[in-house]
Amino acid sequence: MDGSILIGGTNEKGASDFAAVDPSSGAELAPRFANADAGHVDRACALADQAFATYGDAAPEVRAGLLEAIAEEIEAIGDALIVRAMQETGLPRPRLEGERGRTTGQLRLFASFVRSGDWAHATLDSALPDRAPLPRPDLRRRHVAVGPVAVFGASNFPLAFSVAGGDTASALAAGCPVVVKGHPAHPGTGELVARAVQAAVRRTGLPEGVFSYLPGVGNALGSALVADPRIKAVGFTGSRGGGLALVGIAAARPEPIPVYAEMSSVNPVLLFPAALAARAEALGAAFIQSLTMGAGQFCTNPGIVIALSGPDLDRFTAAAAAALAESRATPMLSPGIYSAYETGVAALAGHPSVETIARGCVGEGINQGRGALFATDVARFKADAALGHEVFGASSVIVRCADFAEMAELVQSLEGQLTATLHLDAADEDDARPFVPLLARKAGRILANGWPTGVEVSHAMVHGGPYPATSDGRTTSVGTLAIERFLRPVCYQGLPSSLLPEALADGNPWKLLRTVDGKPVLAG
Amino acid sequence: MDGSILIGGTNEKGASDFAAVDPSSGAELAPRFANADAGHVDRACALADQAFATYGDAAPEVRAGLLEAIAEEIEAIGDALIVRAMQETGLPRPRLEGERGRTTGQLRLFASFVRSGDWAHATLDSALPDRAPLPRPDLRRRHVAVGPVAVFGASNFPLAFSVAGGDTASALAAGCPVVVKGHPAHPGTGELVARAVQAAVRRTGLPEGVFSYLPGVGNALGSALVADPRIKAVGFTGSRGGGLALVGIAAARPEPIPVYAEMSSVNPVLLFPAALAARAEALGAAFIQSLTMGAGQFCTNPGIVIALSGPDLDRFTAAAAAALAESRATPMLSPGIYSAYETGVAALAGHPSVETIARGCVGEGINQGRGALFATDVARFKADAALGHEVFGASSVIVRCADFAEMAELVQSLEGQLTATLHLDAADEDDARPFVPLLARKAGRILANGWPTGVEVSHAMVHGGPYPATSDGRTTSVGTLAIERFLRPVCYQGLPSSLLPEALADGNPWKLLRTVDGKPVLAG
Repeated sequence: MDGSILIGGTNEKGASDFAAVDPSSGAELAPRFANADAGHVDRACALADQAFATYGDAAPEVRAGLLEAIAEEIEAIGDALIVRAMQETGLPRPRLEGERGRTTGQLRLFASFVRSGDWAHATLDSALPDRAPLPRPDLRRRHVAVGPVAVFGASNFPLAFSVAGGDTASALAAGCPVVVKGHPAHPGTGELVARAVQAAVRRTGLPEGVFSYLPGVGNALGSALVADPRIKAVGFTGSRGGGLALVGIAAARPEPIPVYAEMSSVNPVLLFPAALAARAEALGAAFIQSLTMGAGQFCTNPGIVIALSGPDLDRFTAAAAAALAESRATPMLSPGIYSAYETGVAALAGHPSVETIARGCVGEGINQGRGALFATDVARFKADAALGHEVFGASSVIVRCADFAEMAELVQSLEGQLTATLHLDAADEDDARPFVPLLARKAGRILANGWPTGVEVSHAMVHGGPYPATSDGRTTSVGTLAIERFLRPVCYQGLPSSLLPEALADGNPWKLLRTVDGKPVLAG
Repeated sequence: MDGSILIGGTNEKGASDFAAVDPSSGAELAPRFANADAGHVDRACALADQAFATYGDAAPEVRAGLLEAIAEEIEAIGDALIVRAMQETGLPRPRLEGERGRTTGQLRLFASFVRSGDWAHATLDSALPDRAPLPRPDLRRRHVAVGPVAVFGASNFPLAFSVAGGDTASALAAGCPVVVKGHPAHPGTGELVARAVQAAVRRTGLPEGVFSYLPGVGNALGSALVADPRIKAVGFTGSRGGGLALVGIAAARPEPIPVYAEMSSVNPVLLFPAALAARAEALGAAFIQSLTMGAGQFCTNPGIVIALSGPDLDRFTAAAAAALAESRATPMLSPGIYSAYETGVAALAGHPSVETIARGCVGEGINQGRGALFATDVARFKADAALGHEVFGASSVIVRCADFAEMAELVQSLEGQLTATLHLDAADEDDARPFVPLLARKAGRILANGWPTGVEVSHAMVHGGPYPATSDGRTTSVGTLAIERFLRPVCYQGLPSSLLPEALADGNPWKLLRTVDGKPVLAG
């Protein structure tokens, strides 16, 4: 690791550079990192476009092999990756070791999903040459890769949602070369992983342009990448402002392209009466654990708690306040995130419609994120839309409702969310039932008797949701369904056998689940 | 039919009205038609939003029943529908009778597809309570309807892509109430069909807001509809300018929504040497038949022919010129379309880089679309991007290539297309093979030895393609895959059985094909 820009197989330096910073001390970490510029974007995209000609239609085994090789190369970095990530992010070792396992597990899950071929959606309608008044031609459809993809690493998952994280894994799985804009908050971690991907591309004999890595500070680099005509889709996880800026650039291109931006969510948690009566104290303590984990720096952090006012909610609130008051401050990911968090918390603390319930302990050192818990009621919450906006970090607002009608009215007023959580007992099910379809209109994932932090990487997961949770609520950025973001359908009509792609060929050489004349047909 | 606006089950009049016009004579056709306004939009959208609460999660059988009832009610209109459509569009009886069959067939295909439940993409990941370090919760995912949908009828398919056409059928199939902006070029046809849909909604006992119909001239009505916060997606077929205007309105909303606009395509046709040598004359005649059918008013009209220059292409060109010179002019759909066509043809005829090869016969009467055939070479074609833009109507340009390298260069320079066609013999297959992946990057459908006009409505069809063929190349507007435009995924985590939606319930009550722990499982 020497601060390089990785353009395919070549490592380069830039005209300027920047430093990595330890957020817990403010100290610079060696080495200096090159800032990529428009020239690097141009060369990375040219290589990606060249690579797409072969990688875009490579057999499932080839793509799966690359994903598995990346997982192996990341593991081969060893402890140096964890140590560097701890220095750059302030996150503790167990969290980063867990996140590394999640990252390699995600790559391997996509490898197995690529082999299944289900992503191709192979669909065949037989020719009907004798149909009157017109014959039906032979029609065969599959999904194909859209082309090179730009990925913007997230600061809060330096491994699982950064250089070789979920966006990169799903794009490579789809057959799309990837150009990563590295996040400047963890450039060393980013370069270590980027070199692992580069090594995997080399080892599997694929065209070098399948992957490039462009570190840098400032917005010009990312803007140039999204504007490049060879880029056909964008994956992004970060702030609403950042996501919307990329959406705007993508829409203004001569050829607009989709941007999958995962942006902001307050993840409402609904507490139902029987559950609250049975275990208010336990729920309050568990809530604070979910809220303050990782300094609250999760997209699925529970930023709003909704319940009927009364003694049981008071018990929950008191238990939460007590737990929060004992919670330790931990360094946030970057000075910028810390500063935005403090600004958001100060706005709530000074808001005339909001009570401050509790704060976490003051931390030692700089950039320490202290939890913050507030409360208000439905009328006051609804009167200021800003109270429903995400404060990234361990801040949450309890909203007291007079009755279920007011609770429903509040839910209906919410913006789009990544998650919505219900805490309920059997006696609550009838009261909770009408909320399930209401919440399904608002959120990508509805969960019961758990906490929204902790996102399983699996087939059924949805980490997405209506705007502004994401810029495109038709998709997910976690789980195998994420591959759909980088695919589009193509129909082949009456093609001679020798010109058909293998996914659609007679005899089903890839052993795919196919839909034939409207019926699913398992291979073999 | 009396010129009404249909707001759910109520028929209303407006503050102003407009006339239907017979394009072949310019004569007004009775009655006058009400212009819907912002107040009608508001009430239609309010009813649609109310209806979504029940229709959005109605059982497959309920939605399928509505689609079939609509087909029956359209058939029950009888010949009055065909007669009115002939008067309003100038299209001949056989074409409109065929289109009616396509429309009802499409509704019934979606009914059967809704019953299959494949659109729900039911995906279950089993709980792993003993997994270390963390248990896996029970995760179940399905696709749900996005909410009320605005549909803009197309002028060139007054039945199959208008009030109860493909967009409406696929949105209703998905569970989305529909508000149609009626096309002012066929308001009587539109109202007859709208009343059939209204009758079907009433007959099946569904909430009236499942369907409303807003006729009108001018852009304000459509703009208000797309801007309404209760509308969650838009289907549109028409011009690039019209589609992009709606995309802009949708993107500027506080909550942006997807617009599926099918906009413009020149549908390249590649003629390979052995096919051309074997049957230049037959290909030339068949090409003109495809070009001039319906006055060329198809999205898939073959607007550019690409082949190697030489005596065989000269034979093709001569045969096409002879066939075109004998082709009869027919009235175009509206004075506006005729005028735009004449402007586009005049620009090509007067272009210094373009030769005029032939024109069709001059027609009798007004608004008569005469075919037009032009030729140029690759360098001259590439020098002016306007030569690659659609002229809606029976206009096409032959582009002569020096060799396959130039042909590939030309293909790579094209914008996104709905279709790409290959004419080839067995001896051409090796030459054609590299063009298949090139064309797959450009078009939604690749066909061999046929003509792009004539779009089968089936499971494997793709009527879509990269920008500017459509505003969203990840989808299709024809065929059952079109339902995906109006769905989004929702994951249910750890929900009690009594709160799970039926599509995901234990015991698979809807008998769906499900993916369970990554493997497809057929019901029963």
